[in-house]
Amino acid sequence: MSLLVVGSIALDTIETPFGRADNAVGGSAVYISAAASYFTAPIRLVGVVGSDFPKSEIDFLKSRGIDTEGLQVVKNGKTFRWSGRYHYDLNERDTLDTQLNVFEKFNPVLPESYKKSTYVVLGNINPELQLLVIDSLAKKPELIVCDTMNLWIKEKHDELLEVLKRVDVLIVNDSEARLLTSEPNLIKAARKIMRLGLRTMIIKKGEHGALLFSGGTIFSAPAFPFEDICDPTGAGDSFAGGFIGHLARTEDFSDHNLKKAVISGSVMASFCVGKYGTEALKDLSDIDIHRRYRDFIELSKFEE
Amino acid sequence: MSLLVVGSIALDTIETPFGRADNAVGGSAVYISAAASYFTAPIRLVGVVGSDFPKSEIDFLKSRGIDTEGLQVVKNGKTFRWSGRYHYDLNERDTLDTQLNVFEKFNPVLPESYKKSTYVVLGNINPELQLLVIDSLAKKPELIVCDTMNLWIKEKHDELLEVLKRVDVLIVNDSEARLLTSEPNLIKAARKIMRLGLRTMIIKKGEHGALLFSGGTIFSAPAFPFEDICDPTGAGDSFAGGFIGHLARTEDFSDHNLKKAVISGSVMASFCVGKYGTEALKDLSDIDIHRRYRDFIELSKFEE
Repeated sequence: MSLLVVGSIALDTIETPFGRADNAVGGSAVYISAAASYFTAPIRLVGVVGSDFPKSEIDFLKSRGIDTEGLQVVKNGKTFRWSGRYHYDLNERDTLDTQLNVFEKFNPVLPESYKKSTYVVLGNINPELQLLVIDSLAKKPELIVCDTMNLWIKEKHDELLEVLKRVDVLIVNDSEARLLTSEPNLIKAARKIMRLGLRTMIIKKGEHGALLFSGGTIFSAPAFPFEDICDPTGAGDSFAGGFIGHLARTEDFSDHNLKKAVISGSVMASFCVGKYGTEALKDLSDIDIHRRYRDFIELSKFEE
Repeated sequence: MSLLVVGSIALDTIETPFGRADNAVGGSAVYISAAASYFTAPIRLVGVVGSDFPKSEIDFLKSRGIDTEGLQVVKNGKTFRWSGRYHYDLNERDTLDTQLNVFEKFNPVLPESYKKSTYVVLGNINPELQLLVIDSLAKKPELIVCDTMNLWIKEKHDELLEVLKRVDVLIVNDSEARLLTSEPNLIKAARKIMRLGLRTMIIKKGEHGALLFSGGTIFSAPAFPFEDICDPTGAGDSFAGGFIGHLARTEDFSDHNLKKAVISGSVMASFCVGKYGTEALKDLSDIDIHRRYRDFIELSKFEE
């Protein structure tokens, strides 16, 4: 098995009511790959950075068993930079600055060795690029998971609908699900989105956990009860990484295993928010992950 | 065993984006009693209505095994009326009109036969009245559960803190927990509230379920995945009724039974929102309740 991850790579400047980090490594491709690397290998990364991107961070990705043949490094280019400030309760944030830099002309070219990947995650990028990646594949993958955002729902609606016909799993947050369907009720919104051609969809609800919809199954996963969240950035991408990582490791798409994948995703998201950027995803152990998984069981288990 | 319920009794006019009900019977005491009546008996009601309150509704309460000796009927008085309009997504509402009427001078006098009740629920009323009820008890109950609201948190803060020292379980919603503690993080807010002298507290999160805190235990209960909610009014009180009803029936306050009580509360809340006012709580069967409980198990169960 092999997992292809395509998405953004960024240097983020993050302000929360409690602190600040400058030029923290982030971007969907990095969070997804790093989180998935605790479950499966090889992982094949496609993304673009400038020559200002720290070599130590590329070495970190390699140390996690992530193939960087598809990582484009643009000489004399600058890496995509995003800067944002979280509100008091960390549930909302304002973007302070976006510099697309080399990401503006990102062309997700797949190396030959990537084209027969068994699993694919399309991080939150322009749906036109997501389609391009799907078209580049030499073999239909077992599972394609995709993410998107408000910008594409509004500005690339038709292209996004085309993507949704060609992928298996969509992971979005609650406001995106509502925007995509103009439907305030989340359950109705999920049903509407499923009818666009998906087999499975997940709605992330931040501090309220996540909902899985697959066939007739609905599963409600709790969020980890954190008293101190350092930085919510990347939680959703870490979720996607844990989710696909679990599925790639187990190669079982039954409803009961999808539930376990949602919990594995929740576990990785819960680690992610404990430190700035991708720091918390750098040195986890299998025992850390197993213990957190057990905590999730305790959190939602009750007797019949 | 016996359960004492003290709270408001109202005629509510409810507008949602989908419909409207005029003078629907409501109020915390009615919802709590009706929901609890599916689990336990006898239930002793204390509340006040005017002579305009439908006799058929009093007959309904009696038919559910609810003792109405403590129900004060003020001759030539008018029942408390509330009118509200729910927003598009049903998560928020605006109060359009409040007529306190006979509720303005409500004095919750306990009949002698009520004073040794084993379980007590203090619905959302002025904390001064909640204290008065506690002081009237002839014997310390096994468990006192109380609810409150933003108005009392702001305007009767000291009295509310006194109540919290004298009750066992507080049930509030997320915004109330945040307001009471000036703490945006719900887990921290719950910990702070626990330190005021409670053994157990529950935070209701509407469409996102509920959180139970008891000793070192945290439990996350899902919400029922409704596609069509008719009327959210009374969901929180129905939750409280199912919660205390389960505990009164089982007489077991262990953490694992508290979790089951939270699910029983969630079950009753899920029925409540299916019709206007208390209508949905009028003709449930044990099988309905058992089936819904099983649905909640399916909704949150995953393998280890």
